[in-house]
Amino acid sequence: MIIINIGDELLIGQVINSNAAFIAERMNSIGIPVEEAVVISDQEEAMKNNILEALGKTDLVLVTGGLGPTKDDRTKKVLCEIFGMSLKIDQPSLDRITAMFNRRGITLSENNRLQAELPDGADIIPNENGTAPGMWFEKDGKVLVSMPGVPFEMKAMMGDILPKIVERFHPDAAILHKVVQTSGIGESDLSDLLEDWETALPKEISLAYLPRPGIVRLRLTATGNDKTLLENLLQDEIRKLKKIAGQYIWSYEDNQLEDEIGKRLTKMKKTLTLAESCTGGYIAHRITSVPGSSNYFKGSIVSYSNEIKRNILNVREANLKKHGAVSEPVVSDMAINSMDLFDADFSIAVSGIAGPDGGTVDKPVGTVWIAVATPTRLYTEQFHFLAAGGRATIIERTAAAAMSMLLKIMING
Amino acid sequence: MIIINIGDELLIGQVINSNAAFIAERMNSIGIPVEEAVVISDQEEAMKNNILEALGKTDLVLVTGGLGPTKDDRTKKVLCEIFGMSLKIDQPSLDRITAMFNRRGITLSENNRLQAELPDGADIIPNENGTAPGMWFEKDGKVLVSMPGVPFEMKAMMGDILPKIVERFHPDAAILHKVVQTSGIGESDLSDLLEDWETALPKEISLAYLPRPGIVRLRLTATGNDKTLLENLLQDEIRKLKKIAGQYIWSYEDNQLEDEIGKRLTKMKKTLTLAESCTGGYIAHRITSVPGSSNYFKGSIVSYSNEIKRNILNVREANLKKHGAVSEPVVSDMAINSMDLFDADFSIAVSGIAGPDGGTVDKPVGTVWIAVATPTRLYTEQFHFLAAGGRATIIERTAAAAMSMLLKIMING
Repeated sequence: MIIINIGDELLIGQVINSNAAFIAERMNSIGIPVEEAVVISDQEEAMKNNILEALGKTDLVLVTGGLGPTKDDRTKKVLCEIFGMSLKIDQPSLDRITAMFNRRGITLSENNRLQAELPDGADIIPNENGTAPGMWFEKDGKVLVSMPGVPFEMKAMMGDILPKIVERFHPDAAILHKVVQTSGIGESDLSDLLEDWETALPKEISLAYLPRPGIVRLRLTATGNDKTLLENLLQDEIRKLKKIAGQYIWSYEDNQLEDEIGKRLTKMKKTLTLAESCTGGYIAHRITSVPGSSNYFKGSIVSYSNEIKRNILNVREANLKKHGAVSEPVVSDMAINSMDLFDADFSIAVSGIAGPDGGTVDKPVGTVWIAVATPTRLYTEQFHFLAAGGRATIIERTAAAAMSMLLKIMING
Repeated sequence: MIIINIGDELLIGQVINSNAAFIAERMNSIGIPVEEAVVISDQEEAMKNNILEALGKTDLVLVTGGLGPTKDDRTKKVLCEIFGMSLKIDQPSLDRITAMFNRRGITLSENNRLQAELPDGADIIPNENGTAPGMWFEKDGKVLVSMPGVPFEMKAMMGDILPKIVERFHPDAAILHKVVQTSGIGESDLSDLLEDWETALPKEISLAYLPRPGIVRLRLTATGNDKTLLENLLQDEIRKLKKIAGQYIWSYEDNQLEDEIGKRLTKMKKTLTLAESCTGGYIAHRITSVPGSSNYFKGSIVSYSNEIKRNILNVREANLKKHGAVSEPVVSDMAINSMDLFDADFSIAVSGIAGPDGGTVDKPVGTVWIAVATPTRLYTEQFHFLAAGGRATIIERTAAAAMSMLLKIMING
């Protein structure tokens, strides 16, 4: 399959093309490889040539963009030409758009009314989040689907389109996924550890390593015709995986660290606080990016100076003097005292050297101490992250290490 | 020009293609429009077809990726075929790679030695940050430049390549840029405000609106042959712009809000603290993403509950009860008391409803109060952000509004 993203904003570099990555990931998840991803301008000539070229090379083309109220004439005109259709008001789409405007108390403009003018032979895919519907074209065994370019509209629409694509291209297939997420072990060490298990996987199951900073996700894909059989196979393999690598696993879902933390804290009816030094508020930002996080996150301290560590977090002067800010005694004080100060059940404290300056021979840039305090115990660990990735990478990896440390303690005690 | 990014990791959606956006932005900055951006796999067939197709359509093709130690044979082989060259050890490249490995105390493997095997007719562009050099090919008036796919290696290399492209395609041109950044006014209102000025711009200067969440960047590009004349023209126009829209301007450089804040605080030898509610640590994260921020940022409080607002930030109970957490009196207390608590010269406080829950009829999702305390005054402002963009967008826009509010107070008093 080929992805075509239409949009001048992508060609002047104003916007990073996240749509292509999203679609590519979804396509791979249903076993359809992406051959090319092309970004083009919304000029008629470019659209027509590229779409025809893509349809000549492959059976499935997904197109995003070029459907805004000021631009859609051209895209729809080109698609009509290619598929031999003409534009006609689609009543369900017009009703939907009119209702959307009525709810907002805005009168429908002529431009917006034109968004319901759609190619008469295309299957219309409703857009629950915007005014431009999606369109499914089929001709000579080739399928082209046109979607809006606004990421959240496109992503929601992909939820409806994906099953249709599976039905059209793999009518008998059942495809199931399970994601298991690890931290504290690199991709190649994990792959060594899992070698025997991976080799013995049943033929229905394939494995993909999907690394992120500080994290390795494992995606198991089961393909076949019998859904129940596939579910059982997946469950068996996850059980085996847990025995081999359980100590590194922090989630059995395809979610983010902050989502898993939120899920577990909510279930346990427990609260969390943080005392962040080198991550400078980034962990708090991740935790509070989850809707409803105010139910379990009370707040936190960014203690970016020794003065604050002393005066607000009551870190003992003797510990600061003797061991320095980046040390086990200091993060321990930070974790325990922030837990008291915020009256929370769990606390994470981090102190490290994010660079580029501040490193010493004993404690080079990338040295980080993390402490996790629970209602019954205090856990501490030292990390050495590579300085080469720069400040942002050290912050990212420290956050991943700290949040997954909390989760692994919650899971394994 | 056409951009070709080679990489299977892009086609399975594991990595978002930020290289294309970076190159597109740089190309536009030197007045060379991007016609297409294509992502392909590192299979010989795909590479050869797409590169030939691109060279048939345009005069300049920039290629990234496909040069890793395990993959470069194929890419270089394809390029040799297309340009009629053969591979030969390039001694300066071999010396550079050997020295790089010696510094790290690693022995050069055969795979790495092969990275110095390069097409004998290409101009070699040294890679200061990795082992795969760049290559500049020229044939029949067409130019193709091959660069590594690792973003920071590619970005550094673009610094060397850009002047060569200007010299090759616009030999007599001087191209100068100035960026002016605004906030507190939308793109279309700003464009109305600037209409007369924009119409009267000298023919050497072109203007681009580059919006980001909560921010509109204005890029003035001056093109001509006389650099001094262009510099003077730009200065004149920036002066006029300042008169018309000065109240919205927070930077005269192409930097981030946190960079400009850091620059000004460092110059003033002043310190900053924050009291964040709805942004949940995101502003602290932005501030501390700047190297050296520990010189002016002491730390901050994320006060995600009323309890913390009361107990740690000493927000008056009467204000919380009478006006609610999202109110002018509460953010005022937060700003002033955090400034005292952290003994800082400036403080920003934010309190708002990031959603999706927590909105009321009086205070819908997107309602935000921001306070900025300076050594001499307290400033407050209410904002209403659209709920439609979701929680992440409200947090992003709140941070932009808060940081630019501080900057505009620093600049205009």
